[in-house]
Amino acid sequence: MSFFSFELDPALAADPVFDLHRRGKMTMSATVPLASRDDLSLAYTPGVARVCEAIAEDESLYPDYTWTANTVAVVTDGSAVLGLGNIGPKAAMPVMEGKSVLFKQFGGVDSIPLCLDTQDVEGIIAAVKAMAPSFGGINLEDISAPRCFEIERRLDAELDIPVFHDDQHGTAVVTLAALRNAAKLLGRDFAGLRVVISGAGAAGVAITNTLIAAGVQGANVIVVDSRGIIHADRGDLSGAKAGLGAITNISGRTGGIAEALIGADVLVGVSGGTIDEEALAGMAPGAIIFALANPTPEVHPAVAHKYAAVVATGRSDFPNQINNVLAFPGIFRGALDVRATTITDAMKVAAADAIAAIVTDDLRPEAIVPSPLDPRVAPAVAAAVAAAAVRDGVARRTPAPAPAQARQPV
Amino acid sequence: MSFFSFELDPALAADPVFDLHRRGKMTMSATVPLASRDDLSLAYTPGVARVCEAIAEDESLYPDYTWTANTVAVVTDGSAVLGLGNIGPKAAMPVMEGKSVLFKQFGGVDSIPLCLDTQDVEGIIAAVKAMAPSFGGINLEDISAPRCFEIERRLDAELDIPVFHDDQHGTAVVTLAALRNAAKLLGRDFAGLRVVISGAGAAGVAITNTLIAAGVQGANVIVVDSRGIIHADRGDLSGAKAGLGAITNISGRTGGIAEALIGADVLVGVSGGTIDEEALAGMAPGAIIFALANPTPEVHPAVAHKYAAVVATGRSDFPNQINNVLAFPGIFRGALDVRATTITDAMKVAAADAIAAIVTDDLRPEAIVPSPLDPRVAPAVAAAVAAAAVRDGVARRTPAPAPAQARQPV
Repeated sequence: MSFFSFELDPALAADPVFDLHRRGKMTMSATVPLASRDDLSLAYTPGVARVCEAIAEDESLYPDYTWTANTVAVVTDGSAVLGLGNIGPKAAMPVMEGKSVLFKQFGGVDSIPLCLDTQDVEGIIAAVKAMAPSFGGINLEDISAPRCFEIERRLDAELDIPVFHDDQHGTAVVTLAALRNAAKLLGRDFAGLRVVISGAGAAGVAITNTLIAAGVQGANVIVVDSRGIIHADRGDLSGAKAGLGAITNISGRTGGIAEALIGADVLVGVSGGTIDEEALAGMAPGAIIFALANPTPEVHPAVAHKYAAVVATGRSDFPNQINNVLAFPGIFRGALDVRATTITDAMKVAAADAIAAIVTDDLRPEAIVPSPLDPRVAPAVAAAVAAAAVRDGVARRTPAPAPAQARQPV
Repeated sequence: MSFFSFELDPALAADPVFDLHRRGKMTMSATVPLASRDDLSLAYTPGVARVCEAIAEDESLYPDYTWTANTVAVVTDGSAVLGLGNIGPKAAMPVMEGKSVLFKQFGGVDSIPLCLDTQDVEGIIAAVKAMAPSFGGINLEDISAPRCFEIERRLDAELDIPVFHDDQHGTAVVTLAALRNAAKLLGRDFAGLRVVISGAGAAGVAITNTLIAAGVQGANVIVVDSRGIIHADRGDLSGAKAGLGAITNISGRTGGIAEALIGADVLVGVSGGTIDEEALAGMAPGAIIFALANPTPEVHPAVAHKYAAVVATGRSDFPNQINNVLAFPGIFRGALDVRATTITDAMKVAAADAIAAIVTDDLRPEAIVPSPLDPRVAPAVAAAVAAAAVRDGVARRTPAPAPAQARQPV
């Protein structure tokens, strides 16, 4: 493509994906009229000065009289984008715009994509803290492990707005929802499930913690990373993985994925690798297999079904798509509605239970989670998350008695 | 206002300014459909991954396939907001939202307000550099002098997108436009004008530099700050003011505003103070007075008219409103259209001349600048700025043969 040209590559111009992405996927608009001098005198000088003065005198007015209370930053450093890896901030932008428009479409949340020109932990934390007054929440996205754990923990502790790394918690919430329904469908006791999680990155760590927060016994969970089963005596663990070693696999099982799966009721794959059919043969009868790697599941569903009564993947072209879009719009909608200061474990579990409840009356092996397009999901999740925030004492106001009227561009 | 409540202060709820500002003045929208699985597979996974990969391979595709090329960050630290002073980032947000919606209304520029939780020069520079990949330009706003000079200079040098401190250059461009037309109306030689600038903050420094870039002789310019006339021998000057001392007032005049104004053709007030009528009496006959302090001009227009043939203020309720909205939407529109790397002096002068040209055919003492609502202004400014960018070698593409079709929310 030439430096001085408007000519787009003809091959790209004819491609529907590229055609759709031309000039991006979002825009901003005024919600107030700006057509007359009177309009300007209200929305800009001199009128605006009175709103500024009122906020300067009473900061509690800030969320009422700015767009920030409904606005979430989608922040990435481009270090772990989809399955593409560390492609950098600019190449990550189409995903972040996609996330932002899904926030609006399903949650009514205004959202701005911010791709950062640093992959340094302190640099990312400093940049997000600096911009935080402009937002009601921070959605971290596609930041690689283990850096993502410290970045989220520090920001959540240091900011008074929710900070949520979707690759961790969005995935964990939808996985929990699916597992609740799979267990219910099969008549299993949720707390007694023996669970193997293949992969100890952002998603694996969060799924482990969320399943335990929801009632699975840590002693019955085994996490496997690229070097094998995680146990307390492994000398190569630090940070989040060392934390897993302390709370899971209390019996100290060793070996690889095949040893981990012996007698397991549930396999959750978030590794991106492949799992041999022989290993699956060791699972307990009528197992549950979630093979979530994208675009290639760890186990093809046809193979998984030979050993499992319920199978889910991350793909839209198989039944039971475990997709974060079921979680993040409603979670932030609920958190923003009550101006939550953080997103607690109970709020995540409440979100999962709300997602699971949507399909309760029509539970089938090939329908344990709602469609990503089901319009009932986000409002149900939002209500459950808001109520949990109030119960946990992290809400700064009670939920609205009725949904706020959406603002419209003028 | 109670902590757990939706009740707004009844007095504020009944106030039209506060009513307009409730929940802020802007929103964002998708420009692509998101209603079906096929829609999601194009705008989000799996389709989006191909756009990410293409940008990772060829970064020149980035502005074509993201919203960033049309998006400007409006960045402040809340240190010098309107005439309100250092009210902090949150209280500054209503002004930044106002600026963002004016960018869209008059320039078709998507714009995001970012109020930073730091007033440290290095902290601001680091935060803006970190977020810069997300934007096609940076509009700095309401950052106090002298910090604003270093922040703008460093960011402009270190980023490959335009960085523009509107309090400096927006004001300077519109002032230059007004002065061009005032001189023309009065049959004065522009280059020979003897100009006094009262105030050496962000606006005063930029006006001085821009007038000199446009042809006024530095020797004929006198700048006055709160301690009096600036001259090369004053020992208390540093940074930008020392720069003014070196290029203005070559005859070394000393004293205060009254001494400065003796024989002056032009007074530009950007001080926020008041100027006594006695001082005006020393000006040359048929003078030009721009009293731009808001909301209270340094000289009331009725008084100024006793000494001046042309008078302008910053207010909408007097003739000749010198308002930055005449400049910034078109300047960024033009800079973005050619993907300029910076905004040069020639681009600013071109913007001023384009603003001035709008009213050439109908030039009157009470109409030396267009109305802020005149729809001809921004396109004319944009075309002039884009052409100047190409001439100055800072454009990364030639201007579009026709205006790009505006994207619409879906």
